[in-house]
Order: sequence, then structure tokens, then C-alpha cells
Amino acid sequence: MAKEIKNRDENYSEWYNNLVIKSELAENSAVRGCMVIKPYGYAIWEKIQAGLDRRFKETGHVNAYFPLFIPKSFLSKEAEHVEGFAKECAVVTHYRLMANPEGKGLVVDPDARLEEELVVRPTSETIIWNTYRNWIKSYRDLPVLCNQWANVVRWEMRTRLFLRTTEFLWQEGHTAHATREEAMEETRKIVNLYADFAREVMALPVWIGPKTASERFPGAVETLCIEALMQDGKALQAGTSHFLGQNFAKAFDVQFANKEGRLEYVWSTSWGVSTRLMGALIMAHSDNHGLVLPPALAPIHVVLVPIYKGEDERTSICEHLKTISTRLQALGLTVKLDDRDNVRSGFKFSEWEVKGVPVRIAVGPRDMSLGTVEVARRDTLEKQIIPLERIDEFIPRLIKDIQQNIYDKALDFRNRNTFEIDSYDEFRERIEEGGFFLCHWDGTAETEAKIKEETKATIRLIPECEDPRPGKCMYTGKPSPQRVVFARAY
Amino acid sequence: MAKEIKNRDENYSEWYNNLVIKSELAENSAVRGCMVIKPYGYAIWEKIQAGLDRRFKETGHVNAYFPLFIPKSFLSKEAEHVEGFAKECAVVTHYRLMANPEGKGLVVDPDARLEEELVVRPTSETIIWNTYRNWIKSYRDLPVLCNQWANVVRWEMRTRLFLRTTEFLWQEGHTAHATREEAMEETRKIVNLYADFAREVMALPVWIGPKTASERFPGAVETLCIEALMQDGKALQAGTSHFLGQNFAKAFDVQFANKEGRLEYVWSTSWGVSTRLMGALIMAHSDNHGLVLPPALAPIHVVLVPIYKGEDERTSICEHLKTISTRLQALGLTVKLDDRDNVRSGFKFSEWEVKGVPVRIAVGPRDMSLGTVEVARRDTLEKQIIPLERIDEFIPRLIKDIQQNIYDKALDFRNRNTFEIDSYDEFRERIEEGGFFLCHWDGTAETEAKIKEETKATIRLIPECEDPRPGKCMYTGKPSPQRVVFARAY
Repeated sequence: MAKEIKNRDENYSEWYNNLVIKSELAENSAVRGCMVIKPYGYAIWEKIQAGLDRRFKETGHVNAYFPLFIPKSFLSKEAEHVEGFAKECAVVTHYRLMANPEGKGLVVDPDARLEEELVVRPTSETIIWNTYRNWIKSYRDLPVLCNQWANVVRWEMRTRLFLRTTEFLWQEGHTAHATREEAMEETRKIVNLYADFAREVMALPVWIGPKTASERFPGAVETLCIEALMQDGKALQAGTSHFLGQNFAKAFDVQFANKEGRLEYVWSTSWGVSTRLMGALIMAHSDNHGLVLPPALAPIHVVLVPIYKGEDERTSICEHLKTISTRLQALGLTVKLDDRDNVRSGFKFSEWEVKGVPVRIAVGPRDMSLGTVEVARRDTLEKQIIPLERIDEFIPRLIKDIQQNIYDKALDFRNRNTFEIDSYDEFRERIEEGGFFLCHWDGTAETEAKIKEETKATIRLIPECEDPRPGKCMYTGKPSPQRVVFARAY
Repeated sequence: MAKEIKNRDENYSEWYNNLVIKSELAENSAVRGCMVIKPYGYAIWEKIQAGLDRRFKETGHVNAYFPLFIPKSFLSKEAEHVEGFAKECAVVTHYRLMANPEGKGLVVDPDARLEEELVVRPTSETIIWNTYRNWIKSYRDLPVLCNQWANVVRWEMRTRLFLRTTEFLWQEGHTAHATREEAMEETRKIVNLYADFAREVMALPVWIGPKTASERFPGAVETLCIEALMQDGKALQAGTSHFLGQNFAKAFDVQFANKEGRLEYVWSTSWGVSTRLMGALIMAHSDNHGLVLPPALAPIHVVLVPIYKGEDERTSICEHLKTISTRLQALGLTVKLDDRDNVRSGFKFSEWEVKGVPVRIAVGPRDMSLGTVEVARRDTLEKQIIPLERIDEFIPRLIKDIQQNIYDKALDFRNRNTFEIDSYDEFRERIEEGGFFLCHWDGTAETEAKIKEETKATIRLIPECEDPRPGKCMYTGKPSPQRVVFARAY
């Protein structure tokens, strides 16, 4: 099975696609650009959802649900927003099909044309702020801290499983506040929450910081983001948190009476992560054998594989493995006993490697008589024989080690691929190899655009550092207050 | 607050709408027929989801996600299916908007017309069976037991919050089996799972049984359902489980090699419950004071209300209530301390009654000195004073009592409103008052249609009874093998 996966260093893009398909995470559907998330992939997404949802609720947020459809006119109400989304919208124009009067099949019923077309939500600021107008009257109604788990549609021309699909799943938080400071604090709180989640659960080291003006969300005053480095040296934006100022409150006329009874426009934020995180997870950690999953997100922690000849051995070893399974489950681990009799153990080993199960335990007749098990860890592919009686303390510790090791490895990779560069010539040369480049920039959109045009690299974020050191823009030589992070990105 | 709720017996429909709005479960949105599910309503839906999801997983099902859009041509592939859904589909015809060249706002870009229109899924059999064709090759690939949590759209002309909305949230299970027997067993297993959930969690007694041919899901060979009785005497279908035979396998050419290596068409089921359950929950239990929520689904189990005069009393009583809150939370209960100082306690009482919180604990200065609390239960509105030291055993038992009592009350209501009727004249008269009517029917679609036309009553299901007694059809006098359940329905 692993042989069908393209070598990562030879063709990263094909390696990625092979991995998603072979590990049964997702596949393309009959609808252009839309994917089917298969059960194994969805199980990982459910763990991402559960982990984030718990964190949202612990920080005072509640879930709600807003309509899939947005009246076309709503999109136009915020000037930048419409620029950003109108060109990639799925548009519902009719509400009925009819039998084709001229032949077979169905046609759109011309009598069932909508008075106003509906857009399938590309994001929900407009419909939500139209709703908030009725929810918010007084400072006592604030803050409003809503999140929704939903599907959204952006009509992408070039799509890739998880990374860029026409329909994707996400969560979108939309909060309303009485003051600029409180909204800005919320924006920061959430980007930090995303960063903690990326590090602790996804084992993904990330940079945090604001985007430049040209990379902001359409309609945002400030966009904070987390950026991770993939193994091909490209950056991936893994989450964004937007300070929207009063833009949407003004566009939808949402005002509140403050403590003094005066009307003020509400301050707002929005923030989201999507099934794109699945792409980040896969690309950051996996290898030529398949997925490498951090245990915190692995649908199966331990797979048990019997090694046997003949039915008698199979029966006794499987019975034995069942007791091991029970012991490990009692420790809170998810365990799969692979007792299939139509494939060989080598095939099973390779299949669970492709699927990235963190720990494999194999037991053969010799292990049975010696009271041992063979434990293999997916991240390093190391194997070791341990006495059966030690598994209760060994396996949970190993699971922790694996989680930490995957993070450490990714951090080490990022550190080795983060460079301070001062010469634009050197930058142009080295950007080809990938990585994060810490460079000085004069702060203008013009320079940013020229560098992007000439190198395909963008400014991923302006890192928040305690001790920013000024310098000279690598492109124009003009003054720069601090280094920013350049990279080519997904 | 409660005064703004219409009397249930005066105008049931208005009472229901008042309740949904006043208790902040949901509201109409700017998009015709689509609702906003507000945080309090969504919290209940999350509990419904969690309870069902656990049951699905315990019975071997896994979650996946399939596209929102369905190519128009897919709908036509199953003859009955297309009849059922083509007339109420939201149709996406374009993928881009553009600035209006003749003025303000946006128009559909005529150059961005889709080659084949896409339908927003009204249900996912077609896209899923088109996908299963690639998943299922051999008997070893079976069964496939997938569920998805998703939004669906059916263009309804007359909508009502939760009960009938253009967009709604649901789960849809789609399973594939090697044999008719196994698929039929799955169909039954799920309808029983729904019934158990309705009874145990929603406190909702339900009848279980097959629909008549004319009430089946379009494309199903058999539809099993659960039906509940609302307080106005109308029935509400609360869940359906369909045996689809080989209809969709044939429509999408899904065959598998059986153990003998011969190709056979796959057998299938599909089943679902939706946010309509929220409507059932509200209508089955609530009263003129507001919602009555079974504790198993209540977002808040216990609300704590301080009774005080002046800031000193407020501080000391709230401190006291905080320790009570901690004690109750330690027992696994969700507790809300209502320490608002801008509304009176009477207002709070009424507000939490409207929201259906099962237990209210009030503490005033006298309770403080006596070491007592006043406990009010929402279902019966009874109050009693109990010593503080008893709350740890009293409140959890009370919560259990309330859950049971709400079920018993609903069961008693249904029993009192279920009638065996043999005369059609009597049926016509009594159906006006509502209830379930057990009557004989000759088994023909003609008679069923005539009764429906003349009385607006439909056959809700054919109850599965161990000892079916034959009789004569109340309409035609022809032989009938057993009584069936008639009712007017939502």
C-alpha cells in the first residue's frame, strides 16, 4: 500500500493527494470542487471540533445557527466585503425544477424564479449583523459571543482536497462589543486560543501576528492570524481572527444605548478555522509511509495485530489481544483489534502505517509464550519488545511522548527553515527552497506587491516581538521598524 | 413576560409561536422560510445531537460528510425520488455576481452560468449512492454504516419555526447491506433507537410502525416511523427509517461480488430526524407559563435566584448561592446563578419559567438564617422549603422525578386521547377534537385518500401489535386485518 504513495521529496503535491486518498480521509465528489469527507477523515475533524468547541465554551462563547442563504443585496452593504466575495458565489436563482417539456430529465422551472437571488454563504457577517440589529439595543445586551459550525461555499477555480474546496466546513465566531478595546481583546484572545490549540492538539508550531493591510479579510480593520510551515517549505494560514471595527455595525445599522443613554455603533470581531486544518495536519507531519497523526487527534490510538499460522493460533492470540484491548481501553485509549483473516499481517502493518495510527502492538506465538508484546511507534517507526505487564504504564507514556515528539520535530523543522535575510538577491534565490524569511520591509503596499510579483512570496504576518529591531527594507532600502515574515504560501 | 404568551387552549398555533420567540429558541430570518436558531435553542439541539450521535456510534455507525450540492441529473435517476423532491428544490444556476452595469448593487454574471445546474440537497440519497458505487466492490466492503449531520433545503411554501422551514438541520443515515434481511433489520433497529431516544431523553411517548404506501418516503419500499401526539391533538412524525430495497443501488449501479463471486445489487436504508424534534419537544410538554423541558435536554438544570433588599444582602446571599452552585455542579448538574441587579426576582422567576428551567432555587434573608432554600419545580409549579443540607440528595432525585413525570404526563395525555372508533360518522365528528384514532381500514389507497379529503386525517402508521384483530373498514365495510392509527398531523 505504502508503495502507491509518491515520494514526498520527489513530488510533494502528488504525495499529498496520494496520502489523502490512500488513508481514506477524503475524495473528490461528482460535484466540481466539492469533496466527500470519509469516515476516517471525519473522525479527525470531529476531534478538532470537540477540542475547539470546548475551548470556545470555556471562554464564554455559545453556539447558534444562521441561514445558509444570504440575500444578494446584503453582500453589497459593506464595500470591501462585496469586493472580496461577490466573484466567487454560488447563486440560487430558482426554487423548483420541472420535467423537461422537450424531452428527458429535468429543467429549471422558469416560473419559479426568485425575486431576489440568494447567495450560498461564503461567510456570514452580513446575515448575522442583520440579525444582531434586533438583538442588541442596550449595553446590557453586550457582549454577544456567538459561534456557529457550518458549511460555506466559495467558488474556487483550482481546488485541492481540504486545502481549497468549493464547499468546506468551518466554525465562524461573530462577536459584538461595547468598546473598541474589548473587541480588540476578543480578537487577540481567539488568535491565542487557535495558537494554543494548534500547538497542544495538532502538534503544530505557529507564528502569531497581524496581516498587512493588503492581506486582510475583506471588511476587517485588523486581521490576526496563525501561520504554520509545511514540509515543502510553504506557509499555511491555519486560522484568522478579525477585528472588524464598526464596519458591519454601520453597514447594518446596529447601535446600542450606552450607560449614559447615548446611541453608539457596536464593535465587532469574526474568526474562523476550517477543514483546511486537516490539510495542515497532514502536510506538517506525514512521511513517505503515510499519515503521522498526533495522538490527540488520532481516531485510533493503538492497533493490535495478531501474528499467527492457522486457525488455532489465530483464536488464542486474538483472545489474548482482546484482554490487552480491554486493559488499554480502561486507560482511556481508543483501540482497534485487526483480526481480519483475509489479509496478511504485513499488509495490515502497512495499512495502519498509511493511516497514521500512533502505536501498533503485534503479538505472535513466541510473544505469547514469553509474555511480551512488540510495540511500534508510528512517528519514528521504532520497534521494541516489552513485557506484557508493563503496557499499562508504557503505552500511555509512549502516547504522550509521541505527541511531544511530533511537535518537537515540526518545531525543529521550522527553526531550521526560518532565515533572517537582508539582501533581496539572496532572498530571491533562497525563497525557491522554501521556508519562513524574516526580512525588513518599508511598510508600503507597493513594495509588498512588487516582491509578490517577482518572487510569489507574500508577507504572512508581522510578528509580535517584545524587542522589535529597526532596519532597512530589503527591496527599497527605506527604513523598516521590524522584520516581517515572508513565505510562499498555500 | 408570561403574560405575552397566548393561552394554549385559545390559540394553540399562536401559543407555540409566542413560546419559541419568548423563550429565545429561534426566530425568523431575513431569508423567507429560513430560521435563526438562537443560542438557547441551539444548546437544546446540541444535546439532542450528542444523545443521538452516541447511540449511533454504539450501534456501529460512523459519521462522514457529503456535498451540499447535487447535480440536477442525479435527481432524475430514481423515478419516485424525483417526483418527491424536484418541485421544492433551491437551484444554483450561476457561480458569480458582478457589479450592476446599469446602476447600483449586484447582478448575476451571465457569463458565469453553470453547465449543469446544482440543487441544494433536499436529502442525500442520490449523491451518496453515486459515491458508494466506488466504495463497494465486494461483500467484504459491507455493511457501510454512514451518518451525516447536515443542513438540507426544501422549498416550503408555508413555514413554521422548527416544524417546517426551508432550511433545516438534521442527521441522515445511509447504510448499505449484502442482504434484504440485514437492511430490513437495520431499518427496524434505527426506528427503535429513535423511539428509545424519544421516550428516554425527550420524555415523548411514541407509536412505532410502518407508513402506508402513499405516505412513504419517495423511493422507499417501506418507511417505518415514530409518531407522537401533541397537546392540540395533532400527530407529529418525529423520525423515519426507510428500507430502500435495491432502488438506489439500481439507479446508481452499485453492485458487489458476493461470497460466490456473483454480482448483486446492494440493499439499502436511510433514516433521519431533524430540528423538527425541537417543535415536538416544545408542543408536547409546554404550558401557558412557557417551555417545560425534560431535564435530559435542558441547557440549565437549576437556576438560583437571590431574594434581597439592598447591596449588603445581595452580596451575602449571592456568596451563599455560589457555594450552593458549586455543590450542585459537583453532582453533574448545570447551574445558573441569576445575580442580575437590574430586574426584580419576580421578573426572573417568570423569565426562567418561560425558558423551562426544570428547577428553581430561591434564597432570601429568612432562608439564610434558617438554613433553608425554596425549591420550585417547573413541571408542576410546586414549591417547597427544604433544609440546605438535604439539597445534594434532594435535587438530583427531583431532576429524575421531573424527567419521569413529564413522560408520564405525556403518556397519560396520549392514552386519554387515543380512541377505538368503528363508525365513520363518529370518526368525522370526533376527529375535530384531535387525538389518535384506531380504526379499521380496507387497505386501499382510494379509501385512504377519500378519508383524507373528507376529514384531513391521514393514516399515521400501521401499529405493530402482537395480536392483530381483524374487523371491517369504517369507510367501506370491507375486511381489515387490523386497526391503523388515524390522526390529523403536522
